[in-house]
Amino acid sequence: MGRTLVELFYDVVSPYSWLGFEVLCRYQHIWNIELRFRPAFLGGIMQATGNKPPAMLPKRAEYLLKDIKRMAKYYQVPIQISEDDFQRVLGKSSLGAMRFITAIDMTEPQYLEPLSREFWIRFWSQHEDISQPENMLAVAGQAGLSSEVAQKLLEMISSPAVKKQLKETTEEAIKYGAFGMPAVVAHFNGEPHLFFGSDRLELLGSVIGEKWLGPVPSVPNPKM
Amino acid sequence: MGRTLVELFYDVVSPYSWLGFEVLCRYQHIWNIELRFRPAFLGGIMQATGNKPPAMLPKRAEYLLKDIKRMAKYYQVPIQISEDDFQRVLGKSSLGAMRFITAIDMTEPQYLEPLSREFWIRFWSQHEDISQPENMLAVAGQAGLSSEVAQKLLEMISSPAVKKQLKETTEEAIKYGAFGMPAVVAHFNGEPHLFFGSDRLELLGSVIGEKWLGPVPSVPNPKM
Repeated sequence: MGRTLVELFYDVVSPYSWLGFEVLCRYQHIWNIELRFRPAFLGGIMQATGNKPPAMLPKRAEYLLKDIKRMAKYYQVPIQISEDDFQRVLGKSSLGAMRFITAIDMTEPQYLEPLSREFWIRFWSQHEDISQPENMLAVAGQAGLSSEVAQKLLEMISSPAVKKQLKETTEEAIKYGAFGMPAVVAHFNGEPHLFFGSDRLELLGSVIGEKWLGPVPSVPNPKM
Repeated sequence: MGRTLVELFYDVVSPYSWLGFEVLCRYQHIWNIELRFRPAFLGGIMQATGNKPPAMLPKRAEYLLKDIKRMAKYYQVPIQISEDDFQRVLGKSSLGAMRFITAIDMTEPQYLEPLSREFWIRFWSQHEDISQPENMLAVAGQAGLSSEVAQKLLEMISSPAVKKQLKETTEEAIKYGAFGMPAVVAHFNGEPHLFFGSDRLELLGSVIGEKWLGPVPSVPNPKM
């Protein structure tokens, strides 16, 4: 049987997207899946579906901060966030960052994974303003890109081709039924199956016939 | 070390409350916890916190129906729901039912678990109107209560004592930070820890030092 194609729609302003991203990165070596990263724009999904940021409700915001910290610890993803940081990063636009990430996807996709991860680290651990060009360049350097390539990506973010690609990926997520992210779409038995949130990966496993081994699974020894 | 007190705040109109309820019922024999059922009124929590029913967003309602069905199957909880049923049960008030359940909690708490379960079955599998007195009486009969006791409970639901108790339990959930249900509060290391949703029980386990064995854990053989 062929591998199940699993698409992960994500945005770097979403901390739960980071959790889902890291867990799926780990499971792609364990489950019989082909993981495909789909950088999309959360703001576009929220606007199209009429969804509102969950942290707009004060009681939920209070809970989410605790939940993100506990989940990050259990999932072993280095989110560092205080209440002040949380208030400060909420509602920040990721349009520039997601266009930058889209540009790498279109030109050197082998850097998509490390570049996305570096954006999350900068935003959710260091709380930098990732809409600033100098910060995007620094992120690219950290991800292993040369300064020439980074500069080229920066120029690309205002190009119609990159804008169009990000828009199309976002629209595809909406077409699958997403109203937020992370949105995971597993193509199984000839149908797309949508899962919303980093807490539905165990359920995803059950649908595609794979076993959940917790958020930090041990990689089977390839020599055995 | 003593057992960890785990309080489950729930309402029978919430299908995810049912999932959380059944899973915790299973784990109370496996984890070192003391499970305490806290019937509360979801409408009161929503009103006090300004939260809105998640299914009010059309795209989310569409997803929730699929999610509830898949989760129910994986969790082995017999929810039977079509799109028509889903539209019909949404927004139904549970005030009478939760007062009925509160009355049993105050008088014969050993029936709290089966009575709550029967309400869920009636509402989420058979889609009956559980606000009707004759249906409440039928639920009580199914849960093993005599018709005398059931009739007494029905009279109690309009009593100030029952109304007050349900109000107090609901306020307690809000005090712990709940903005919806199921809300699970684990008293660990001298502090209450709030978990929202039936998808945070693995995380709850990690916080109290217990292992998640999936939604349908095997009960260890007591003879061994």
